[in-house]
Amino acid sequence: MLIQEKLDQAVNVLNETSMDCWLTYARETIELCDPAMHFVAGRDVVWEAIFLVHRSGEKIAILGQGDHGDFEASGLYDRVLTYVQSIAEPLRDVLQELDPQNIGINYSLDSVSADGLTYGMYQRLLKHLEGTPYAERLVSAEPVFSRVRGRKTPEEIRRIEAAALETLEMFDQFAQTIGPGWTLKQISDYMHNLMAERGVGHSWTYEGDPGITTGGEMEAGHATPDDTEVQPGHALRLDFGIKKDGYSSDLQRTWYVLEPGEEDAPEEVREAFRVVRQGIDKAAATLKPGVKGWEVDAVAREVLQEHGYPEYQHALGHQVGIWAHDGGSVLGPRWERYGARPYDALEKSQVYTLEFGIQTSRGYVSQEDMVVVTENGCRFLAAPQERVWLLRF
Amino acid sequence: MLIQEKLDQAVNVLNETSMDCWLTYARETIELCDPAMHFVAGRDVVWEAIFLVHRSGEKIAILGQGDHGDFEASGLYDRVLTYVQSIAEPLRDVLQELDPQNIGINYSLDSVSADGLTYGMYQRLLKHLEGTPYAERLVSAEPVFSRVRGRKTPEEIRRIEAAALETLEMFDQFAQTIGPGWTLKQISDYMHNLMAERGVGHSWTYEGDPGITTGGEMEAGHATPDDTEVQPGHALRLDFGIKKDGYSSDLQRTWYVLEPGEEDAPEEVREAFRVVRQGIDKAAATLKPGVKGWEVDAVAREVLQEHGYPEYQHALGHQVGIWAHDGGSVLGPRWERYGARPYDALEKSQVYTLEFGIQTSRGYVSQEDMVVVTENGCRFLAAPQERVWLLRF
Repeated sequence: MLIQEKLDQAVNVLNETSMDCWLTYARETIELCDPAMHFVAGRDVVWEAIFLVHRSGEKIAILGQGDHGDFEASGLYDRVLTYVQSIAEPLRDVLQELDPQNIGINYSLDSVSADGLTYGMYQRLLKHLEGTPYAERLVSAEPVFSRVRGRKTPEEIRRIEAAALETLEMFDQFAQTIGPGWTLKQISDYMHNLMAERGVGHSWTYEGDPGITTGGEMEAGHATPDDTEVQPGHALRLDFGIKKDGYSSDLQRTWYVLEPGEEDAPEEVREAFRVVRQGIDKAAATLKPGVKGWEVDAVAREVLQEHGYPEYQHALGHQVGIWAHDGGSVLGPRWERYGARPYDALEKSQVYTLEFGIQTSRGYVSQEDMVVVTENGCRFLAAPQERVWLLRF
Repeated sequence: MLIQEKLDQAVNVLNETSMDCWLTYARETIELCDPAMHFVAGRDVVWEAIFLVHRSGEKIAILGQGDHGDFEASGLYDRVLTYVQSIAEPLRDVLQELDPQNIGINYSLDSVSADGLTYGMYQRLLKHLEGTPYAERLVSAEPVFSRVRGRKTPEEIRRIEAAALETLEMFDQFAQTIGPGWTLKQISDYMHNLMAERGVGHSWTYEGDPGITTGGEMEAGHATPDDTEVQPGHALRLDFGIKKDGYSSDLQRTWYVLEPGEEDAPEEVREAFRVVRQGIDKAAATLKPGVKGWEVDAVAREVLQEHGYPEYQHALGHQVGIWAHDGGSVLGPRWERYGARPYDALEKSQVYTLEFGIQTSRGYVSQEDMVVVTENGCRFLAAPQERVWLLRF
């Protein structure tokens, strides 16, 4: 159903962007899977396969014999052509029939999501199209695919919101369970067990989900959970996401572990939290369709600067979808590393994170929220944290 | 440990093939993972990353801040350089220092395994190298990577063999359990449960592993397991592989379900089985280092032809490793679809399948075995099936 929705969306976007067709070309997807396959196919192929969406609304699949059965049964494609020895002939036939003036293929310098075609496959495609006018009509499908992937359908938003809400439940469950002497490794194992119990997956690399920092010695970039103990006097931060029904969450929350006699976190921790909250909330208030990603990022950076804190070394936010990092436009600074991605105008129904933190002497204090872009602004998909949560062992 | 072994192997292969260095360039590998990453990194990266192996033996990683910690800890790389804003500068510095005359990168027209660099990343790489002589020194790393991946270390062979033996055990367990009225869907669910119980993964797409055919109406290419019942008088075939300790198996076995009063399979089924066995055994007898893949394939095809059966529409065998399809050289016909892969000379310590079948009026009768290439021939990794196994409901 989702794939049908995404294919229909693709037809609309082709018409909007004046692209004649979008061509996904893949092979052996269990070994290397073009991210576009999640939206145009929804299953693996072994042999070279072409999935072509035309602006007329027609959808054509060309598949090696053995791969074709399930696609025929799915009814997603108007025509399912099969081949045994070479895909070149049916591909040329289809293109000659449709005669597209431009053909979007999956490559992009800046967006990994829109860059699923390998260099070898690109060269194969050129070879298949030798002697036709079509090799010269190949263009990047990024404008099409990034819109198709970015604009979540109502069903996609429902799934992402469900993942976000379940993530908050899991934070609560964790906070009720953690006790004295727990190490980062134990926290990681605990969250992994919770994921297995609840039948949800990870939304980025398993070993690093959740990412955990505790105490003033540990910086935000801390990698694999180790034997460091969570101790009274620590700010403890979890960066955690789950995958549920194929869609992901990505949230950060911060706790403070009270020392004997303390009733609240030290002012240094509370102040850092307030500034992070203020930065995220101000950024959220500027976030609406048409605004550029870097403009939203700049708002949060300015709040940090006003309060004399160092800038964060990453983007304020990325899109969320089938993975925590969904590619496409980013709420990020105009650094080379982000290429053209911070310059895009934001669109309704995109889902972004808003995230950054401040290093304190008690630990890294951060927040990560998720918002969906609405007609005139944005909506938080899970209630933001209002103050540092307290733990008492 | 395995990654250390593979990196050391890479240094040897660079010297053999007169390539100066092998450069893997990846980003956001959870979204799209260059197969080479399994051998040079063994974990995910978020930011653009370079893994460079030099023929001198030096290994250098360039990683975005946040990705570097685990690699520093692993000790796999002699130097771990980090960057915040752009990878271009440290990359240019390293290349200027090493001044390689050629730089192998991961692209290949024919081998999906050696084709992990996307077209967008290739263009980024050209951009990073602008104004240096190195853009013009980029070549395909396929000769290096296909050797590194193909030549299994003793530890890799041990793991593949263990996966193959466990697969045979699972076939036995299945045969002792199946009863009247079982459908293909039930068989698939049963095997999936067995996999979960034994804590092993699938070695190709989950929904299609095992692939199952039963009865004369069903052809080899039959896709998703459905409600078709296995009935007396059917030849039943499972194509099944598991992944254990990161390495895969891929085997096919055939049963015949006796009808009331029958003591053996009909002659048609037994004859098909004998011809398949003969084809595989003759092919295995010619398989040794130096022989070309297509020559081995041709032996089995000839056996079929001699007996008046139609040719199989695929290659006789593919390599097995981290997945059932491990890429690189193939024991296949010289069809366009296989590109240059059937022309390679076979090498010691590669692992291949030998597989084909014959359609009979009772069902598809096939075999798939796994062999490792030895000094002078090859060795079966799991005992071949000697006759059609009988089921009586």
